[in-house]
Amino acid sequence: MRSTHPYQQGLDKNPANFVALSPLSYIERSAHVYPDRLAIIYGDRRQTWAQTYTRCRQLAGALQARGIGEGDTVAVMLPNVPAMLEAHFGVPMSGAVLNTLNTRLDGEAIAFMLQHGEAKVLLIDREFAPVVEKALSLLGGQRPYVIEVEDPLAPDGKALGDTSYEAFIAQGDPQFAWQLPADEWDAIALNYTSGTTGNPKGVVTHHRGAYLNAANNVLAWQMPHHAVYLWTLPMFHCNGWCFPWTMALVAGTSVCLRRVDPAAIFGLIREHHITHLCGAPIVFNMLIHAPAALREGITHTVLGLMAGAAPPAAVIEGCEKAGIDVTHTYGLTEVYGPAAVCAKQESWASKPLDERARLNGRQGVAYPLQQAIAVLDPETLQPVPADGTTMGEIFFRGNVVMKGYLKNPAATAEAFAGGWFHTGDLAVMHPDGYAQIKDRSKDIIISGGENISSIEVEDVLHRHPAVMLAAVVAQPDEKWGEVPCAFVELKPGVQATAEDIIDFSRTQLARFKVPKHIVFCTLPKTSTGKIQKFLLRAQVKSMD
Amino acid sequence: MRSTHPYQQGLDKNPANFVALSPLSYIERSAHVYPDRLAIIYGDRRQTWAQTYTRCRQLAGALQARGIGEGDTVAVMLPNVPAMLEAHFGVPMSGAVLNTLNTRLDGEAIAFMLQHGEAKVLLIDREFAPVVEKALSLLGGQRPYVIEVEDPLAPDGKALGDTSYEAFIAQGDPQFAWQLPADEWDAIALNYTSGTTGNPKGVVTHHRGAYLNAANNVLAWQMPHHAVYLWTLPMFHCNGWCFPWTMALVAGTSVCLRRVDPAAIFGLIREHHITHLCGAPIVFNMLIHAPAALREGITHTVLGLMAGAAPPAAVIEGCEKAGIDVTHTYGLTEVYGPAAVCAKQESWASKPLDERARLNGRQGVAYPLQQAIAVLDPETLQPVPADGTTMGEIFFRGNVVMKGYLKNPAATAEAFAGGWFHTGDLAVMHPDGYAQIKDRSKDIIISGGENISSIEVEDVLHRHPAVMLAAVVAQPDEKWGEVPCAFVELKPGVQATAEDIIDFSRTQLARFKVPKHIVFCTLPKTSTGKIQKFLLRAQVKSMD
Repeated sequence: MRSTHPYQQGLDKNPANFVALSPLSYIERSAHVYPDRLAIIYGDRRQTWAQTYTRCRQLAGALQARGIGEGDTVAVMLPNVPAMLEAHFGVPMSGAVLNTLNTRLDGEAIAFMLQHGEAKVLLIDREFAPVVEKALSLLGGQRPYVIEVEDPLAPDGKALGDTSYEAFIAQGDPQFAWQLPADEWDAIALNYTSGTTGNPKGVVTHHRGAYLNAANNVLAWQMPHHAVYLWTLPMFHCNGWCFPWTMALVAGTSVCLRRVDPAAIFGLIREHHITHLCGAPIVFNMLIHAPAALREGITHTVLGLMAGAAPPAAVIEGCEKAGIDVTHTYGLTEVYGPAAVCAKQESWASKPLDERARLNGRQGVAYPLQQAIAVLDPETLQPVPADGTTMGEIFFRGNVVMKGYLKNPAATAEAFAGGWFHTGDLAVMHPDGYAQIKDRSKDIIISGGENISSIEVEDVLHRHPAVMLAAVVAQPDEKWGEVPCAFVELKPGVQATAEDIIDFSRTQLARFKVPKHIVFCTLPKTSTGKIQKFLLRAQVKSMD
Repeated sequence: MRSTHPYQQGLDKNPANFVALSPLSYIERSAHVYPDRLAIIYGDRRQTWAQTYTRCRQLAGALQARGIGEGDTVAVMLPNVPAMLEAHFGVPMSGAVLNTLNTRLDGEAIAFMLQHGEAKVLLIDREFAPVVEKALSLLGGQRPYVIEVEDPLAPDGKALGDTSYEAFIAQGDPQFAWQLPADEWDAIALNYTSGTTGNPKGVVTHHRGAYLNAANNVLAWQMPHHAVYLWTLPMFHCNGWCFPWTMALVAGTSVCLRRVDPAAIFGLIREHHITHLCGAPIVFNMLIHAPAALREGITHTVLGLMAGAAPPAAVIEGCEKAGIDVTHTYGLTEVYGPAAVCAKQESWASKPLDERARLNGRQGVAYPLQQAIAVLDPETLQPVPADGTTMGEIFFRGNVVMKGYLKNPAATAEAFAGGWFHTGDLAVMHPDGYAQIKDRSKDIIISGGENISSIEVEDVLHRHPAVMLAAVVAQPDEKWGEVPCAFVELKPGVQATAEDIIDFSRTQLARFKVPKHIVFCTLPKTSTGKIQKFLLRAQVKSMD
């Protein structure tokens, strides 16, 4: 390489040709180009892009007037209401970092996050007053300034805020001259991993990645301009997989709702002609199993993006039958939500339904603007053979990977060791280049020296006609080391015995993979629909 | 602002979370995800994404083996053949900069570019042998290594190359381990502006901008995966507006063709079910006026992207009638081709055709991933009132703006003065935020102290039923300073007199804007369909 050449001289960055990549630019453009299009529908409320942009600027201005700016954290504990969407723009426009809190957590967890993230301001919804009150009491004198988002659709609850959201933003300048971040690498959001054990880690993401992943959603899902998007996915979950920013990019309409309820969902799909929605498999499972009467009058296909847990093949199959066109994506908080997609191949269309479901159930390939997903030997970081059977770990590399964990250099270094982000998910690579998760590292069951994928066993259980949901964990066993134990939630009004289910499993699985015990129960779930296996493991141990 | 805060500590870039943005990543992904899909159709030739990627790696490897790398220029003088597409990947994969030469230029101009760009390698097509021979003779001992792309569909011509393209890439490693650029700001391409006077300027673009604008095309045009794209736009023109890279992003099929010919175009549209094509207004004009028989059997709508010159309203109107759904974009070589789009509004659909054509004929708003387009007072750089009448100059700012002009710091500084890229196009800003070009600075006609937009006069002339194409330039006039003089090309087999056309113009234009002279002729055009007004101006002067 030559040390200097003509292309290195006099061709530098300047304000005309270099601007920080930030999803904040998307709302500025939509407010300019489509000022009168609807940005938000919520109950009877209608809000255009121009109005939404103005309110976001007011929020930013009011925050700056309180001294909030670069490096400060603004936390929010909100359902999917308009203020939650506005916070995704208004908070970073002030220069601050948005920390969306999981609304299903308890006071201790919330207190930990507020303290660790050093939140200066907290936006809350009255529904969560008891938890917030507990959290604030634990914080003592270090409590943030609390702003209550008053929502006529919220249940009754105790007023806790130092002020109301409307009163707060009314102080902000509607023409507030916000600035793009000085550097596109600057933090935009802080999201605590739902971590099933130990203290949560604070995933810090940046403007560049949020900009790119918002576009990624459009590119991967072929989203048209002005999509009508239903907020079935919590916005507190990885910033709603970047969809608040995606909707600004496509100048679409966000239909907000406080809680996932099949009757409400189908009603909104019918009323607003919803085109797109996202969710964990559990959300789709709920829609599939809802009474058919709820779906009456809906004649269009709804496009669904599924991620958040490996989907049982039965869910993918059920969506196909129910007229929901599901695209399966994969990701983690550390990669801004989905960063891989099971890209559909034309040749799959002619295959039988169960085969299509099997193919679509894989975690797939990198998102268009993500650099790489790989299945590597976790020791050597060399790719495993693409044979569909050799187990490795999934790694990501690219611009849609977090900055790191806040105030946790050890965990950050561990996550990035070797120049790849370590997901902890165990997977195989298929000959067609599609990755498929076989298990979380900690969920694998090792029985008589053989690895058993809990997902494989769960997939079989989900095919049993009586099973609504199933989770399989390792049960300590004197002879085999571990054996699979299945927790099963039956469909309403349907009966089955443990023997039925074991017999069924024997027809589908190698003998050593068949669950040795079946426990009937309602499965414990996180707010994002992940089954809390750590609770099941604890239960298994107490069974001994 | 605080000087340090937790978000600044331990959250740095590393190989896992930061990768240079480059459109080269797009072909790697398409070859991985869709290896067997067709990337290229050309005559009888069919080439998949896996094959295309391999050939690009071979090209890169062979170039590096010849010592070509970072900071070197590889020039190409090729029609829209497969090798031209491959060069868009293979050349930058080697680290070198791709310089696509305008195939309609003469030997002197080509010699200037080869010398100024310091091209080390030149890929040529036999059709251009006479011009290349002349250029090489002018270069003397400094001639580049010449590689001839042998094309069975090329006309006969003299063999000039030091080697053939197939022999050259056969030396390259199909597994060549190319690298992304060390910095996304590194140059990817060099494009000389077609400059109607003076020496051409070498516009240097970078990987970051090419990556973003390739995605911009998808986002602005709502392109689906696997679009089938017909190469009616020369790839030498702003790298085909970044579409070689866009097609890799959507894993689409490029249908190549050597020359723009209505019979061939409609034949390919029919045979391959073309979904998308691009071109200057002149290309669409040609399609509109082609015999209806050529269109027989084509039942689908073709999506057209139009840019390269302000489109006469009659062309936009004609496309609507002919079933070509045109999106009008605007840009320049300095902004990678199109970087603004006349984004369609739902409310336009119900308006009369001529009103729709008027609305769609404006240059519009920034591309989704471009930061800003503005109409500013060129002296103060303040926005002109958005009143649709106050004239200003169009400026761009954003990541889809060139690095600068090669070895021309004065022109670069002038182009970027004040933190905006100066287009030299005069325009108004409409109340809805859409810019509309009124003229190039140098094309404006000043008559009796009044500005006359040559485009406005041309628009009227294009509505005359006998007029195929028209161009209006200033003619020196003792009394008025300047008056408009119109050059008119009539439709084949149609007659009209100068008086007819002047009478028609009087019904549509203020008296002082009506052309004083009409000259019937075949209009001189650049290879990209721009009318060469400098030739017309010279002719006007010789008329005195």
